[in-house]
Amino acid sequence: MYIIGSKSLFFCVTIQQIFISAPYCKVFRGFGVLYTPVKGALMEQLVSLVYAVSFFSVLIAFAFAVYLYFWVKSQPVQNKKILEVSGLIRAGANTFMRQEYGVLAKFAGVAAVVILLLLPSPIWTGGFTDNIAMAIAYLAGTAFSALAGKIGILVATLSNGRAAEGASKGIRPAFLIGFRGGAVMGLSVVGFCLLGVMAVLIIAGDASILLGFSFGASSLALFAKAGGGIFTKTADVSADLTGKVELGIPEDDPRNPAVIADNVGDNVGDVAGMGADLFDSNVAAMASALVMAQSLDQGRGANTAMVFCYAAVGLISSIIGIACARVGEKGNPTRALNSSTYSTTALFLILTAAATALLDGFQWRIWGAAAVGLIVGVIIGITTDYFTDDSKPIVRMVAHASQSGSAFTILSGISYGFISSLPAMVGIAISALTAYKICEPLGEGYALFGIAMAAVGMLSIVGMIISNDAYGPIVDNARGLAEMGGLGEDTIRIADELDSAGNTVKAVTKGFAIGAAGLTVISLLGAYMSEVNESLAAAGKELLTGFNLMDPTVFFGILVGASIPAVFSAMLMLGVDKNAQRMVKEIHRQFREIKGLREGKKGVSADYDKCIQIATDGALKELIPAGGMAIVATILVGFIGGPSAIGGFLVGNIVSGLLLALFMSNAGGLWDNAKKYIEAGNEGGKGSEAHKAAVTGDTVGDPFKDTAGPSINTQITVVSLVASLMSSLFAAFSLFG
Amino acid sequence: MYIIGSKSLFFCVTIQQIFISAPYCKVFRGFGVLYTPVKGALMEQLVSLVYAVSFFSVLIAFAFAVYLYFWVKSQPVQNKKILEVSGLIRAGANTFMRQEYGVLAKFAGVAAVVILLLLPSPIWTGGFTDNIAMAIAYLAGTAFSALAGKIGILVATLSNGRAAEGASKGIRPAFLIGFRGGAVMGLSVVGFCLLGVMAVLIIAGDASILLGFSFGASSLALFAKAGGGIFTKTADVSADLTGKVELGIPEDDPRNPAVIADNVGDNVGDVAGMGADLFDSNVAAMASALVMAQSLDQGRGANTAMVFCYAAVGLISSIIGIACARVGEKGNPTRALNSSTYSTTALFLILTAAATALLDGFQWRIWGAAAVGLIVGVIIGITTDYFTDDSKPIVRMVAHASQSGSAFTILSGISYGFISSLPAMVGIAISALTAYKICEPLGEGYALFGIAMAAVGMLSIVGMIISNDAYGPIVDNARGLAEMGGLGEDTIRIADELDSAGNTVKAVTKGFAIGAAGLTVISLLGAYMSEVNESLAAAGKELLTGFNLMDPTVFFGILVGASIPAVFSAMLMLGVDKNAQRMVKEIHRQFREIKGLREGKKGVSADYDKCIQIATDGALKELIPAGGMAIVATILVGFIGGPSAIGGFLVGNIVSGLLLALFMSNAGGLWDNAKKYIEAGNEGGKGSEAHKAAVTGDTVGDPFKDTAGPSINTQITVVSLVASLMSSLFAAFSLFG
Repeated sequence: MYIIGSKSLFFCVTIQQIFISAPYCKVFRGFGVLYTPVKGALMEQLVSLVYAVSFFSVLIAFAFAVYLYFWVKSQPVQNKKILEVSGLIRAGANTFMRQEYGVLAKFAGVAAVVILLLLPSPIWTGGFTDNIAMAIAYLAGTAFSALAGKIGILVATLSNGRAAEGASKGIRPAFLIGFRGGAVMGLSVVGFCLLGVMAVLIIAGDASILLGFSFGASSLALFAKAGGGIFTKTADVSADLTGKVELGIPEDDPRNPAVIADNVGDNVGDVAGMGADLFDSNVAAMASALVMAQSLDQGRGANTAMVFCYAAVGLISSIIGIACARVGEKGNPTRALNSSTYSTTALFLILTAAATALLDGFQWRIWGAAAVGLIVGVIIGITTDYFTDDSKPIVRMVAHASQSGSAFTILSGISYGFISSLPAMVGIAISALTAYKICEPLGEGYALFGIAMAAVGMLSIVGMIISNDAYGPIVDNARGLAEMGGLGEDTIRIADELDSAGNTVKAVTKGFAIGAAGLTVISLLGAYMSEVNESLAAAGKELLTGFNLMDPTVFFGILVGASIPAVFSAMLMLGVDKNAQRMVKEIHRQFREIKGLREGKKGVSADYDKCIQIATDGALKELIPAGGMAIVATILVGFIGGPSAIGGFLVGNIVSGLLLALFMSNAGGLWDNAKKYIEAGNEGGKGSEAHKAAVTGDTVGDPFKDTAGPSINTQITVVSLVASLMSSLFAAFSLFG
Repeated sequence: MYIIGSKSLFFCVTIQQIFISAPYCKVFRGFGVLYTPVKGALMEQLVSLVYAVSFFSVLIAFAFAVYLYFWVKSQPVQNKKILEVSGLIRAGANTFMRQEYGVLAKFAGVAAVVILLLLPSPIWTGGFTDNIAMAIAYLAGTAFSALAGKIGILVATLSNGRAAEGASKGIRPAFLIGFRGGAVMGLSVVGFCLLGVMAVLIIAGDASILLGFSFGASSLALFAKAGGGIFTKTADVSADLTGKVELGIPEDDPRNPAVIADNVGDNVGDVAGMGADLFDSNVAAMASALVMAQSLDQGRGANTAMVFCYAAVGLISSIIGIACARVGEKGNPTRALNSSTYSTTALFLILTAAATALLDGFQWRIWGAAAVGLIVGVIIGITTDYFTDDSKPIVRMVAHASQSGSAFTILSGISYGFISSLPAMVGIAISALTAYKICEPLGEGYALFGIAMAAVGMLSIVGMIISNDAYGPIVDNARGLAEMGGLGEDTIRIADELDSAGNTVKAVTKGFAIGAAGLTVISLLGAYMSEVNESLAAAGKELLTGFNLMDPTVFFGILVGASIPAVFSAMLMLGVDKNAQRMVKEIHRQFREIKGLREGKKGVSADYDKCIQIATDGALKELIPAGGMAIVATILVGFIGGPSAIGGFLVGNIVSGLLLALFMSNAGGLWDNAKKYIEAGNEGGKGSEAHKAAVTGDTVGDPFKDTAGPSINTQITVVSLVASLMSSLFAAFSLFG
């Protein structure tokens, strides 16, 4: 009764029974002892309650993920060819992951030492424990994200063969295997995210240490998303160039030494990469919200509780949505995936509204901000779908333009790609403005907190989003395996239908991911300013009240910041190109030196590992200069222009990054589906001139949508976090600042 | 002696002899009487002196242009075929110009009425004379720019045939005809610009009326650059598709009904369009500098005098540079064009340094800002050259990538295009920051004035720049005419060499134009803020001290503003596509219905006019929605978010506009030259697979570099001026402002 206050007596008593009187709750109330209660015991216990709920939701998520894992594992797979190839894919994915994590470990080791020495403030100025906490949080961020990625790949490579065999029994079992395989990744990502954030906050006490955790997650995302993106397109392009173009053998022909690398690429790019990207966004959104909440609460309080409560409710809604997702024997898998997303969204809105109504200190305005964020996220997804779905006019216009030649495929795709950025940009702009205005009346600092909560709201259903997204590469692989395993026409048709649903939903989730990253980095800007002001206050300097566009250092920062995503994505695309050249050379060597390979002689097998090795080495080699360029540019601008220039730099980076990410992802999706639309027999069908032109469009679109476009998100987050972490250094030393 | 003060007695006396004692000078001193002298008679007379010098430089420019016109006209042209075809080109260009100006007249009429009613403040709130002055200034801006464009086209279409025949006598006369033909346009543009600005300022007295003049110039530039850009690429693409691809006839074959339209396009796009674009930038730079100068001077004074003095010195330096440009019998035309630019630059720096040393009230720091602008402009031109010149590695890498197919031509071109934006963006950023910091110590308001003077400095040599640029299409046409006129191998080789120099220099001038527009719009931002504050002060509201990035209305504006250039350029490119489809249909009709045309029967001629008509109608039809979208978006953002949102909107627009303009112009130039490099016998030469891929790249690049890329400049200026002009309305009525 004394916990919840006056709002609902009955509810209080019930909650009291469950969480306070029950013996296990004492464990969580125990955490409260570590803190100085600020708003009295009442609020302190409420926070403990929310922590308990969050922790239980994580446990349920993990338990459910384990159940789904064993459920997937229990599905039969007997076809020898499928077992063999999916084994090769799993081994290849592990090779990449092992090597990626190896390089990452070195990078993270160096970064951790730098953090230990310099951040949040140089170690020789005192604050030794903060530096240790920050370095450990950083390492934990990389480790948690890596673990989630590892689990995702494990299950995805387990599911693909089973989904292929499931398709021989019908759409219902095959859909469930694909979706539940993806859901393990979704639940792991959100579970580890929430667990990690809670652990850091409970152990360190200071939310700004979360920025270290978030930076760790970003480092991993940079490797996983950009590295995985280069890997997947290297393999894809090389396999196509040598197989389809030079030799005229089918896409998944096992004679092609790059074919396994190509399938591995789907997993490391779309499963592990996308998972790490959303883990990163989710952590960043929570970190920036919690930094502000803690400063508003002056410690632990209702705002901190709201952040955790909403994240936990989002996870619970996703669990329910995942548990309910299924498709009938004659059902439509696209509709099944979409309706799960919508019902998860509705559930989240209802449950958070209930929590807001019932719990003390929870504000309706903040609920409004979170709701605005989530709804705009869904709307952005829908508009993305309009530009990339082949049942809508845009894809058909691009397919039609292909009849005049590949130049027109490219020109129309680029044009519609540019136009497609408008609704999402306006959507992000409106949601940020609305969230700000809704929360402004709550008092100083709440307006920016509103934007952060819009990001938290948008990302609340991320468990569901990742499940949908990881479903894509699983059923894509399943389709290939069904063909290689010779499972027959009917099975392939079903696998095709599942695959097509995956493609459609992927475009939606990509738009969603970019929108979420947009709101997140806007709120990181707020986190950056509060970090800078803390440093300035400590140094006894004048505080910043914002970043004035009429200040030339800010403008300088904006112009430089805006060109970084363009250069970053160009470097990744050129990296794919260079890497593919190396791989094509190796494929030529194998065909030359391995006797009988070209003819498909029995017992002669290509050296798949060598190709995987080249794609892996190259991906990591090409990634580092691109990522390094972005980080070095941030540091240079900071030391030249000071904290104001960095403010401008971040804004320029966000704005042009969002624009280019939306443009590249959507144009890529558009070209992909225009090609598929023609292959379905329209505008002349397969083999026609229009088809050739559409293939060119798709080849351009592949690194757009799978390498450069989605990596820009990560680049923006990395740069924002580097800026926040180094803010005290920029405040202390700069040329013009 | 009493005029110049103490700096140089001898110089004073000389100047006195020339300008003060001589009877004609009284006329100019007479203007001074119209004003209230602020800093006393001394400064007043200095200003009059500078006005006099400016006026004389305009007279000299016009006289020199007339001389060059008659010189070009006196060059012989006898080949009948050349006379006939160049007559058709001239007639076609006139058709387009007449119709364009017709539509423009209607548009300008409506805009003038709107201005009369609403700007600078609604007519019912008083200030009737200001509104009349603004409307007249607006109409004058369109008229002056139109006149300069008309003259440019007249001479360009006169020079092309003469340059072709000149080439039969050697490179020396042909170069001179091409260059001097272009110089008439260069001198007219700068002459009318300076004359117009002086006239408005003298008659209206208030520099903010110049924004109306500038808006007029922008309106024309929008029609000339974007309309001309759609026209030229419509004709180019249609001629290629039907001629080269479908019928397999050569590029300039007279049987093709689109061939004349194609040649007309070079003139209306590159001569008239580029001229209007730079007229627009030049006026905008002077207008924003003069608005600030007048406010710093509290009337007429040394700062106003500096703006005019520098502009006049720039014009004089260009005249000298143009007069000295020539090439020896074995000379290199590219080097001749470049060295004229460099010597004009050096001359400007020396003469302005002398004026700054000798004249009272002229500040070295302001000279420094102008010098920084000009030098950075030249550097931007050189870096652009690095990315687009086929003797440098980038073009060769793209040509090499073409061997793997057109997708790789596109991907590598897009990647290097993205990267090429970095040096220019950083250059603009550094020049703005440096100019600001140099002038900051002069006092309140001088820092922003420094940025405006950097833009004035960068644009000071615009007469030379336009001469170089207009030279390109003249010698391009000359090459085609030499072929059609059958002037023989040697002549064509010389014409080729001249054409290739034109292409190289064009890339440099484009980079320069974009850089100049960048600095100009940054200083327009300053003009916008001072306009807003005037309105806010009049309304008794709190003044803006800047635009804070942490203000969500500003951020809202930035996100929306950043997407406008993407959508604008997409609409133009799609417009080219739609228009080309209409034209291809007409060409097919002519081949079907005009008997004997396909076979080239004697006496049978294609209906060239019909094609020109379609390109013209289509260009104007497709342009209006794109321009309207940008203007409507500005107005919407203004009425939703108020003056702060517009501040953000302008910055977002500038930043993403510069990025996309640089990317598109450079990628287009890169693809064009990669194709030419392959055609010169590299990477397999003409007809190879690499060549086919490079042709696709060039087809994509054409609307990039000739339609969308350079029109973005104009879009940014138009939007900035609409914002400045409507600032009082946004300050008075807005939803969130």
